[in-house]
Amino acid sequence: MSTPVIGIIGGNGKMGKLFAHFFKKNGIKILISDRDTKLTNTELAQRSDIIILSVPIDKTEQIITEIKPHIRPTSALMDLTSIKSAPIKAMLKAKCEVLGMHPMFGNSNPISGQTIILCPTKKSSTHSKWIEKLFEKNGVKIIKMTPKQHDKFMSIAQNLVHFSEIVFADSLRQQKMPLKQVMECASNSSQQKINSALTLITKDPNLYANMIIENPNALSALKAHQKSVNELLKIVENKDKKAFEKYFNKNKKHFS
Amino acid sequence: MSTPVIGIIGGNGKMGKLFAHFFKKNGIKILISDRDTKLTNTELAQRSDIIILSVPIDKTEQIITEIKPHIRPTSALMDLTSIKSAPIKAMLKAKCEVLGMHPMFGNSNPISGQTIILCPTKKSSTHSKWIEKLFEKNGVKIIKMTPKQHDKFMSIAQNLVHFSEIVFADSLRQQKMPLKQVMECASNSSQQKINSALTLITKDPNLYANMIIENPNALSALKAHQKSVNELLKIVENKDKKAFEKYFNKNKKHFS
Repeated sequence: MSTPVIGIIGGNGKMGKLFAHFFKKNGIKILISDRDTKLTNTELAQRSDIIILSVPIDKTEQIITEIKPHIRPTSALMDLTSIKSAPIKAMLKAKCEVLGMHPMFGNSNPISGQTIILCPTKKSSTHSKWIEKLFEKNGVKIIKMTPKQHDKFMSIAQNLVHFSEIVFADSLRQQKMPLKQVMECASNSSQQKINSALTLITKDPNLYANMIIENPNALSALKAHQKSVNELLKIVENKDKKAFEKYFNKNKKHFS
Repeated sequence: MSTPVIGIIGGNGKMGKLFAHFFKKNGIKILISDRDTKLTNTELAQRSDIIILSVPIDKTEQIITEIKPHIRPTSALMDLTSIKSAPIKAMLKAKCEVLGMHPMFGNSNPISGQTIILCPTKKSSTHSKWIEKLFEKNGVKIIKMTPKQHDKFMSIAQNLVHFSEIVFADSLRQQKMPLKQVMECASNSSQQKINSALTLITKDPNLYANMIIENPNALSALKAHQKSVNELLKIVENKDKKAFEKYFNKNKKHFS
């Protein structure tokens, strides 16, 4: 197989640029379409062997509908979104090879040494195998799972973690205390926790809104979190140290 | 002033041992009383120039009542608890020098390079100045504040942080997912966040129960946290991306 031409739709976004740079470094011919490019999504679809969607989750379906008639049956359609069930279902409507991908790293990191989750489909074939090998050759750790498994895992590894950080930042803001002084008298681990939440909220709100709101498994994980909060708050309100220790030890035991 | 004799009540506990080791290393004579020592708290109080209470917060008042008649007026009474208003109020009932202390580090760390918060009182004098200099000479960072300020700052730097970690661990447990697999497909920052919560719940539940339940400012901070959780969960439930971004940006703007 000769080296395929890769077209990235949304190639001027942060994640698109990162992958474009990666493919170029590997000597691969790249086409890019975005809101401000001369090349249209349709033209890109006609000319690419592998079409990668690097667009917000809620734009994926619309773009697939737009390019579907122009994809060659021998080409491959892949995506980079943080949700896999719905985008893969949408991609499978196209008459071509289909592979779901999810890079597990912020858009500013180098690709080598990072993890990419792949969700192969019944329509994954030559191009899917080729890109997997390319990633592996470049030191990327590949994890394979079904779209359903992916979305379930991400409701924890992403949604629950992000939700917890964002609400922490919100309640920190409500205290109206000088952050510098709080940080000065905080332990190292508290400083890390505070910094971690404050780093997250410097990022793109739209990305996090999409990740949480589009994941079909997020809500049940977040509702469990609310339940945990309500339960422990009630214990603190009742000054019930025995119940606090029971709550604490239940988790200590579970994870030990 | 000759080097004072330091008596540590609860000196066989983790924090007590850490400070005993520190004082010994500095060539200071140490007395220790604990549940299993021959030396009683009363005897220790009679023989010490500086008496340090290294006992659970909810035992402090009881022990002060026990030793109060035996403390020499020229001696000093100090504590190591994570709350300052109530213990200092209780210590001030004794007719001696009084200093509140709070070491901002886990009980397994070396003292040098760490932070100790001091809450001087109107009855802080010679021994208080001496111990402050000893800490500084050993590379300890000293921060001074009033007991009220201390408890307000700790409701954030400790209580809010710990609460958030403990409820996160609880909601993680509820998911009944294989932690190893979740960790494998999590980003570095998510792994750190999960590890941080799982590290906290390996610690002593009684210590955390005391810190949260005894701090007079904790409940209002935790209720604000509950409000933040309820608000964002409702937004996710309504799939309202605009409201999500508004919530996110409000905090982004506040902390930028």
